[in-house]
Amino acid sequence: MAISVLLVASTPEPDRTVAAAARLCYSNASAGDLVEEMKGEDISRFIGHLRGSGHLSPFEHAVFTFAVDGISRVCTHQLVRHRLASYSQQSQRYVEMTQPEAVIPPSISSDPVAKEIFTRTIRESHGAYKALVEAGIPREDARYVLPHGWMTKIVVTMNARELHHFFSMRLCRRAQWEIRVLAREMLSLVREKAPSLFSLAGPDCVARGRCFESRPCGSPFSSVEEVLSG
Amino acid sequence: MAISVLLVASTPEPDRTVAAAARLCYSNASAGDLVEEMKGEDISRFIGHLRGSGHLSPFEHAVFTFAVDGISRVCTHQLVRHRLASYSQQSQRYVEMTQPEAVIPPSISSDPVAKEIFTRTIRESHGAYKALVEAGIPREDARYVLPHGWMTKIVVTMNARELHHFFSMRLCRRAQWEIRVLAREMLSLVREKAPSLFSLAGPDCVARGRCFESRPCGSPFSSVEEVLSG
Amino acid sequence: MAISVLLVASTPEPDRTVAAAARLCYSNASAGDLVEEMKGEDISRFIGHLRGSGHLSPFEHAVFTFAVDGISRVCTHQLVRHRLASYSQQSQRYVEMTQPEAVIPPSISSDPVAKEIFTRTIRESHGAYKALVEAGIPREDARYVLPHGWMTKIVVTMNARELHHFFSMRLCRRAQWEIRVLAREMLSLVREKAPSLFSLAGPDCVARGRCFESRPCGSPFSSVEEVLSG
Amino acid sequence: MAISVLLVASTPEPDRTVAAAARLCYSNASAGDLVEEMKGEDISRFIGHLRGSGHLSPFEHAVFTFAVDGISRVCTHQLVRHRLASYSQQSQRYVEMTQPEAVIPPSISSDPVAKEIFTRTIRESHGAYKALVEAGIPREDARYVLPHGWMTKIVVTMNARELHHFFSMRLCRRAQWEIRVLAREMLSLVREKAPSLFSLAGPDCVARGRCFESRPCGSPFSSVEEVLSG
Repeated sequence: MAISVLLVASTPEPDRTVAAAARLCYSNASAGDLVEEMKGEDISRFIGHLRGSGHLSPFEHAVFTFAVDGISRVCTHQLVRHRLASYSQQSQRYVEMTQPEAVIPPSISSDPVAKEIFTRTIRESHGAYKALVEAGIPREDARYVLPHGWMTKIVVTMNARELHHFFSMRLCRRAQWEIRVLAREMLSLVREKAPSLFSLAGPDCVARGRCFESRPCGSPFSSVEEVLSG
Repeated sequence: MAISVLLVASTPEPDRTVAAAARLCYSNASAGDLVEEMKGEDISRFIGHLRGSGHLSPFEHAVFTFAVDGISRVCTHQLVRHRLASYSQQSQRYVEMTQPEAVIPPSISSDPVAKEIFTRTIRESHGAYKALVEAGIPREDARYVLPHGWMTKIVVTMNARELHHFFSMRLCRRAQWEIRVLAREMLSLVREKAPSLFSLAGPDCVARGRCFESRPCGSPFSSVEEVLSG
Repeated sequence: MAISVLLVASTPEPDRTVAAAARLCYSNASAGDLVEEMKGEDISRFIGHLRGSGHLSPFEHAVFTFAVDGISRVCTHQLVRHRLASYSQQSQRYVEMTQPEAVIPPSISSDPVAKEIFTRTIRESHGAYKALVEAGIPREDARYVLPHGWMTKIVVTMNARELHHFFSMRLCRRAQWEIRVLAREMLSLVREKAPSLFSLAGPDCVARGRCFESRPCGSPFSSVEEVLSG
Repeated sequence: MAISVLLVASTPEPDRTVAAAARLCYSNASAGDLVEEMKGEDISRFIGHLRGSGHLSPFEHAVFTFAVDGISRVCTHQLVRHRLASYSQQSQRYVEMTQPEAVIPPSISSDPVAKEIFTRTIRESHGAYKALVEAGIPREDARYVLPHGWMTKIVVTMNARELHHFFSMRLCRRAQWEIRVLAREMLSLVREKAPSLFSLAGPDCVARGRCFESRPCGSPFSSVEEVLSG
């Protein structure tokens, strides 16, 4: 099974909500009126202005919930380090792992010898897990033999400000391939819902026009489209 | 102007979204399927079970955005101490305060002598503000003479877990009257949108059946309805 | 290698710092004077009062940094879900895993058959990892075959409020054995440094005198000492 | 009374603690050994490298607690918007405000006419507060007439990562003068304790060599020393 990312919920009209909240700071109008009255063009110009200045706090009012399947626990261990977000993950303590299911890295799947080693190890590790469970070992302990690449499911909620931070870190070429795949799927989905909030998003080379890494990758992206195409 | 609280945005189907995310932890189904398939009755029973056990992390996937007008800066200074939330507030640095507008506490409005002192002081403080601005003092400095009760506007985004915490603190009789009024309005609004998530919410006397204050108020609430009626 | 937990840094005089900060809220004295002047007995009584009422926000001013070795990635994946904390973890992307090193659960080490399965699987998984690295697969991808029980190292910083929450969750008998071992070590260490802050800490059965789980374990702890003895 | 800022507690050896935690990520040594063994020169070079790349998460392990007196509630309302920090503030609900005490902005104190308006308004507002308290109005309500500039006391705990963010926002010439004064005092204090962590800190013009504001102030700072001298 390959990775699957669904946008299962989000703030309705995220662009408008953010723009109205931001306008409130500089206006005497009521917040309710601002939500009603802002026009599409104003919204997009105003959001561009906020993003350009790095005044991202109003972006927090737009929130997105993703359901992710077919991701490895290597990737979720990286993902949940983003603390300004909410997570619900499938528990290996309560759910029995009945079939061998692991994410195979492209560097391995494209190399027949490596792929054979990988596939055999996953199968044998899962066999050991099953043998341990049959011998009466609790699932939560038997899983210590399951491989890092084991598949898991997770629901993730992040607001647009944290998403921008997440995209800047995890769409950089220096991030690992799997979390980059996840981040690309997430960015594609939120761009449809909130085109103004995410018209410019991604690693610093794209979003800020400049790399701040001490050892740059040497291949800066030139556009969000290039980032999204991998 | 009295306080006005609008629910300007929220997670669509908040009860269902939370229940599906929570179910994922204990299931082999995909998150997408869970969102589709959960029935109303299951949702409400499952959420009740989570709340009863204090397993509130899935509640974070339901998010609510409020637009608040006619609240004092006394109240917003208390409000923004809740750090697991997002705020956009009208700026006194950029917006000129043209009219004397302050929130008057009921203990003062119900006492003719106190009310007269209050009204005069608000008017004179605002007069001093205007005189300072006219004398060329920047607004951000002239406002140092405006009273704490001065009205402001704020957009607030909180998730259902933080809202439960907010309601437990701020609907207690020991909280100040103004933030209690705000919290009541917020609770009324979210109960309509998310009846299961908020069927039981409020101070510990109601939500946990027991007061943990070292000096209890002596008048515990007996129901959410009583809390909401003030 | 067994688990090793060191308290490598902490707020000097944590009890005094918290008590002085809390006193400030109710006093006209300066914060600096309060830090100087509070006596030991006052400190301990005042902190007991805060804890009893659940007014834990001043507890955040006491901060503790732990260095943890010999813990599994199962355990750190649970640990880092505590978001009000700071973590620095050994990277499997950059550090080569030269020896087979995994945490073996007691349920497995005490069962000769299970132990044999476990040991063999760890050894074979590590063999596969080495073979993949030798075949030119990047470490970050080769590690997908390493078992969940693989050992890691992590530096953790938490304040006393979050530690209380962590202890309430992770010293409960329903938490997994490994994070309970970690939490016991942490609680022992902070009790020495901050006896007032942590005189009463642990699962709700001990710290609040009552269990809130929907399915209680049936064996409530009767004292912090019993919690610490495992 | 003028502003007074004391550093009442901090992580002992903050530079060393951060450097050891960061090294752990890329090393096979134990965290305990790393804390013992790192030399001063390594520490400073390693920290410079982290800061240059924006890899600031290890900076969170160094934590600083400040006691602040003589600051206005205008300033604390801005301060407590920084959510990754801990605060304990003097309560106007419990402490009676016996004397007229307000922070006077320099733009006002340097202008005799404005100063006279200001001083009179503060005195009259405080007179109204006292009259209301004497008439039996609760302190928490009487304070609605106290001016925004009223003095307060607050204890603040922030880690070095959040302090860098705070300094970048609040030492910018576009921040208000009072929070800039506070931030300068705080930066002076932490630089003594943690010279490597804060050798380069301040607004983007200094810390990143470039302004990201859409409307720059036109007078970028050229050094941390210039920032500190106001």
